[in-house]
Amino acid sequence: MQNKSKAIQDLYPDELAHCYGCGKNNPFGYQLKTYLVGDETIAHFTPDEKFTALPGSVYGGLVASLLDCHGTGSAAAFACVAENIDLENTETIPVRCVTASLKVDFKAPTPMGTELELIGKLRSIEGRKIWVDMTLSAKGIICATGEILAIKLKSNV
Amino acid sequence: MQNKSKAIQDLYPDELAHCYGCGKNNPFGYQLKTYLVGDETIAHFTPDEKFTALPGSVYGGLVASLLDCHGTGSAAAFACVAENIDLENTETIPVRCVTASLKVDFKAPTPMGTELELIGKLRSIEGRKIWVDMTLSAKGIICATGEILAIKLKSNV
Repeated sequence: MQNKSKAIQDLYPDELAHCYGCGKNNPFGYQLKTYLVGDETIAHFTPDEKFTALPGSVYGGLVASLLDCHGTGSAAAFACVAENIDLENTETIPVRCVTASLKVDFKAPTPMGTELELIGKLRSIEGRKIWVDMTLSAKGIICATGEILAIKLKSNV
Repeated sequence: MQNKSKAIQDLYPDELAHCYGCGKNNPFGYQLKTYLVGDETIAHFTPDEKFTALPGSVYGGLVASLLDCHGTGSAAAFACVAENIDLENTETIPVRCVTASLKVDFKAPTPMGTELELIGKLRSIEGRKIWVDMTLSAKGIICATGEILAIKLKSNV
């Protein structure tokens, strides 16, 4: 199992690290952190109470946002593994992915006031296309699943 | 063509109007407003600069959030039409929808610094299930398409 000391998003080049959802250079944003652990990716996030949907639950837009950023981060991580890039011994990765398609299925209300866990698993890589399957859970219960098709940017390959 | 003076979200019952994306009772949120115009729905939103993705574009999580809230609002509007509820002569509608599934396809970067336009069209209604197809455009160019399956809550029917 790989060390999870470095978040993928913290390895993005500075000029590509402004995303509201996960950029280390966006002080206003969520700063989601995705870690590669073994052959999966993992991230955690505890939503602020203002991100409500119906009272007591997290609004779907935030669930989609977290899955989107965890998805592109996971895609970058899996692409690095496929290219034998050692994530533990680099300060910047030459891979940045953007979303082509995101599907979110809401399985149960996402409860407010608890830490959410996102898990990503690689489905396949074909050239610059990377498919990742995800879950978003609270207290061990899957609240949403996500499927992303991410595209590796050419300029950083 | 129907008068677009009342937003669907402003007709939600007060206890179901706290959504961060579109609730009139959430002062911290986006307060997206969806209007029924003819047989389509429309909403507009101008993102703040902090909601960046790569510099110059809007992050995907916000695009997904807007499509999610416009989708559930559109579903509520179309359900009201199907049930012959006159949106212009009511203060509260007895219909509130939640998202079962949302798919977003990103067609082009969503530019920052311009008003975005969301359009919704009813695909079908089967019982409590409502499917809506959407576009999100900037300056007449479609940046993303969305498909939502929304479910009408039982408690308000």
